Amino acid sequence: MSKQKVVILSPFPISEEARERWRRKFPNFDFIFHLKTWGEPRAVETVPDEDWKKTVALFTPSALPAPEQVPKLQFVQLSSAGANMIINHPLYKDTNITFTSAKGAYDPQIAEWAVSTFIGVRHHLYRYHEQQKQRLWNRILDPVPSSVGQTVGILGYGSIGRQVARVSQALGIKVHAYTLHPKNTPESRRSESGLADNLGDPEGTIPEKWYSGTTKEELHEFLGSDLDWLLISVPLTAKTKHLIAREELQVLSKKRAFISNIARGPIVQTDDLVEALENGSIAGAALDVTDPEPLPKEHPLWNAPNTIITPHISAFSTAAPDRVLRIFEYNLEQLVAGKKLINIIDRKENY
Amino acid sequence: MSKQKVVILSPFPISEEARERWRRKFPNFDFIFHLKTWGEPRAVETVPDEDWKKTVALFTPSALPAPEQVPKLQFVQLSSAGANMIINHPLYKDTNITFTSAKGAYDPQIAEWAVSTFIGVRHHLYRYHEQQKQRLWNRILDPVPSSVGQTVGILGYGSIGRQVARVSQALGIKVHAYTLHPKNTPESRRSESGLADNLGDPEGTIPEKWYSGTTKEELHEFLGSDLDWLLISVPLTAKTKHLIAREELQVLSKKRAFISNIARGPIVQTDDLVEALENGSIAGAALDVTDPEPLPKEHPLWNAPNTIITPHISAFSTAAPDRVLRIFEYNLEQLVAGKKLINIIDRKENY
Repeated sequence: MSKQKVVILSPFPISEEARERWRRKFPNFDFIFHLKTWGEPRAVETVPDEDWKKTVALFTPSALPAPEQVPKLQFVQLSSAGANMIINHPLYKDTNITFTSAKGAYDPQIAEWAVSTFIGVRHHLYRYHEQQKQRLWNRILDPVPSSVGQTVGILGYGSIGRQVARVSQALGIKVHAYTLHPKNTPESRRSESGLADNLGDPEGTIPEKWYSGTTKEELHEFLGSDLDWLLISVPLTAKTKHLIAREELQVLSKKRAFISNIARGPIVQTDDLVEALENGSIAGAALDVTDPEPLPKEHPLWNAPNTIITPHISAFSTAAPDRVLRIFEYNLEQLVAGKKLINIIDRKENY
Repeated sequence: MSKQKVVILSPFPISEEARERWRRKFPNFDFIFHLKTWGEPRAVETVPDEDWKKTVALFTPSALPAPEQVPKLQFVQLSSAGANMIINHPLYKDTNITFTSAKGAYDPQIAEWAVSTFIGVRHHLYRYHEQQKQRLWNRILDPVPSSVGQTVGILGYGSIGRQVARVSQALGIKVHAYTLHPKNTPESRRSESGLADNLGDPEGTIPEKWYSGTTKEELHEFLGSDLDWLLISVPLTAKTKHLIAREELQVLSKKRAFISNIARGPIVQTDDLVEALENGSIAGAALDVTDPEPLPKEHPLWNAPNTIITPHISAFSTAAPDRVLRIFEYNLEQLVAGKKLINIIDRKENY
């Protein structure tokens, strides 16, 4: 009699220690490890059909089997915080199999990136680095704003946004939060994401003001709330594609806000962003994500003023694999115990 | 009958609004404004001897009159947080005139710099910026540590160190504090610097561990307390010159710490630092100050690995002049009221 299978298509190495612990903890499961890089669709073929038939849980960056291959599958743990790359796959679209995200695993690292790049551009640190390459000890006299008393608007007050809020507060920055659904009660303001490190804003007490809604007016009310900095941390869904375009940039130009995007490139209308950066109506941008990715060599965004671009790496850290695997391990425990998993992706909202 | 004089040798413009407010607030003073750049010793000559004779208060970046020129002088407000540049001047050395610093005015800005550069080097953000200049969308695969659970040692837990502690805590970093004198009671841990913005660590409750002392053993105990990051934020005095040299760097190499210096260059023995950076025994450095300054073109520090160098600008911000002048204005009020000034420089410690 052969055991139920747990298939792990991991984008990063998995320590022998973790493997051993799982075997001990879950004696009824047979673990199948396939170490694959991000976005390798052929990963699915590396697992024999025989094994897929007995698979009850799958850990994957994005590769998915066809629904008919996995009659016993109970849940899919994604290794990413977002789900946009799998929503058109039949396994997600045409079944009721539970999908869970790695929401929470990357927050502290992405928040580090967001804070460092925001300050970095404003303090001219990348320009100083260019001078350093030329061995030039030369003070740049362009103004450097102070963050104290300024306001950050966090578009998407999820687990990443909450950690940026926490650090912003320590820097003396006021926080305005924007969520899809209204958060008018203390309960609704609580964070739902799991396995935090005592960071973020689990109770939702940091924002001075809360905004929500799906209309342009509601969004513009938030964007017009005296923001010096806009952090984009909403998932990419049909509703958020091009959420920030010409009109929104115009609202942000009132205070010449700075824009950080750590979510997904297409949330911003790129041509409009380039124009706003080039004409100086916004102060600058820090973009870990672009539309398209990779950003083509000839794209004008590369040398837009006061802009730092990185190739979708803000989540990278030596600590991330362990955090992601902890979420997966916790969900396996919940599955075995017949309890509710964490980080379940809502099929209505796709995040 | 002519009024008492207040001389202002300001390195930055002073708004008409501030001038007007002071004239109203202090009707018995005659304000003399001379806008001068930093380190302009001839500034003193621009004030007639006649005026110096009646001067009761002086605001200056560093230029000072001779003691015999200013028989009525009651206090000197420096526009900097440190006093090292004036301690050999006769007005400081040979009189009892009160000197006050601008301690507190630059904390939030310097803390922004310290956090951004620390994260920036560790996340390879300056290398990404170099790639951006070449329009290269390329992921750097060198490891990126996560700050969560790591430890920063703050060498000199004054007002700047306290604000770095506050932001570090929000990032999930544990804080160890080092002070010259032991801080064993809640009272002694309180901050003495004035006019804070509800930031920093006024009660001294953030550090998990406190260290103090003047011996090498005491210093090494602190440096050896599992530090991943050392922030140097002590004033430059005879006691702190070359405080961090070969042996100290060796202690820091245990965990391959990262070093940030926002204080003064000579606190670190530069040749030893270059060697430690080049042989990789420390992880990197962020240096707003160097020894010497300006750093000569041929100096090996310029291209030490994982190092960012800026030309003593971390305090720059559009908010700083206002904060410095608020301290001066407060001290003028205290003077008129016959009360104790804030930020008085201790002539034993020279800070």
